[in-house]
Amino acid sequence: MLIEKLRAMGIELPAMPGPFGTYVPAKEVSGPAGGLLFVSGQLPMRAGKLLAEGPVPSMCAIDHAREAAKQCVINALAAVATIGPGAIDRVVGVVRVGCFVQSDDGFAQQPQVANAASEFLIELLGEAGRHARAAVGTNALPLNASVEIEFIFQMRTA
Amino acid sequence: MLIEKLRAMGIELPAMPGPFGTYVPAKEVSGPAGGLLFVSGQLPMRAGKLLAEGPVPSMCAIDHAREAAKQCVINALAAVATIGPGAIDRVVGVVRVGCFVQSDDGFAQQPQVANAASEFLIELLGEAGRHARAAVGTNALPLNASVEIEFIFQMRTA
Amino acid sequence: MLIEKLRAMGIELPAMPGPFGTYVPAKEVSGPAGGLLFVSGQLPMRAGKLLAEGPVPSMCAIDHAREAAKQCVINALAAVATIGPGAIDRVVGVVRVGCFVQSDDGFAQQPQVANAASEFLIELLGEAGRHARAAVGTNALPLNASVEIEFIFQMRTA
Repeated sequence: MLIEKLRAMGIELPAMPGPFGTYVPAKEVSGPAGGLLFVSGQLPMRAGKLLAEGPVPSMCAIDHAREAAKQCVINALAAVATIGPGAIDRVVGVVRVGCFVQSDDGFAQQPQVANAASEFLIELLGEAGRHARAAVGTNALPLNASVEIEFIFQMRTA
Repeated sequence: MLIEKLRAMGIELPAMPGPFGTYVPAKEVSGPAGGLLFVSGQLPMRAGKLLAEGPVPSMCAIDHAREAAKQCVINALAAVATIGPGAIDRVVGVVRVGCFVQSDDGFAQQPQVANAASEFLIELLGEAGRHARAAVGTNALPLNASVEIEFIFQMRTA
Repeated sequence: MLIEKLRAMGIELPAMPGPFGTYVPAKEVSGPAGGLLFVSGQLPMRAGKLLAEGPVPSMCAIDHAREAAKQCVINALAAVATIGPGAIDRVVGVVRVGCFVQSDDGFAQQPQVANAASEFLIELLGEAGRHARAAVGTNALPLNASVEIEFIFQMRTA
């Protein structure tokens, strides 16, 4: 079970106590064959602080942005957990990852940053963690974060 | 019904007469349990003119960009209407909002702009209007618009 | 059949031999009524080289970016083919196109670039090729590509 795997890896999901603002951390669309869970764009917050700020690479080194991307995955799992008890263990795969990297003009290695998120998802979920992905640059992100990542997870029915 | 709620609020949906260009305002994917409606990226057009142009905040104040974001929601509902008679009243919820804010380098308050769209969706649809969201900055948008927003709505079958 | 149409048009799909890296070219989500295929963001690679580099229009003319956008569609179909034998002919329509154009500040004609992809999809698939679309600018893309396009295709069950 994913929740046990996280525990074995020493990863604690941050609490995401509601009430939430004008949008929610995650929204599920159910079908008879299971459903999709759309997770909002996650910033690399850790213990209430942004892990990485400013454009890559001038203000944030690639390796640091990679660590931030991994934190976005952890926060995404915390977002999954807000759906309800057992939600984490209903995750059966990853469908899509959308990765925005705050980039200096001309920076062209967004995939190297996004790979850190992708590799971590495969570590957690195995082959089912493989996903379609779009990784692009941008000149500006919320809170001046270096990375924002959104996700679509595939869920089994409860 | 949503269509009556809009009327009560004095909101008139703009006409979106076809034929359309190379893409369509909205595309529905149906399933036995209802479907998803993907709405194209909407610009803040009102009465044939862009409501807000240029990057936020140097050329477009945040409050003005927020009004533009609300207009994008109105235009999205007009896009829903192009699917066919009764389409608006088949909207049962909002799954995802993708908000692009044309931003000066270093501008970091995209969520404040996107919130205007999210708040309006909740006003229209209640709890079912809550959605997953990605809000990011960009250095350039079509027609030099300050905001572009795309949507995925959840639909009940006809 | 799409595969024959491509052949008749003299379009050969590039090989996409695995193993793939940390993400996959395409990921399918199946349902009883058919499924959705999420295709990763495609760059305009042709014969192993990028067709168009740098921001539009200063380093890449609009017409050249349009040719690149068409190449992204060809590469997307090659990505579809990686799913398995016959996958191309299970494509029954296009749901969404997400087009990122590397743009000079102030460039506002992203739709003109994206149209080349949209027109080509309609040429290939007829009315079912019409799709919802978001076209936006960005200051930076992987490998310094001028265009990146991701896709959601609608699939019939095998």
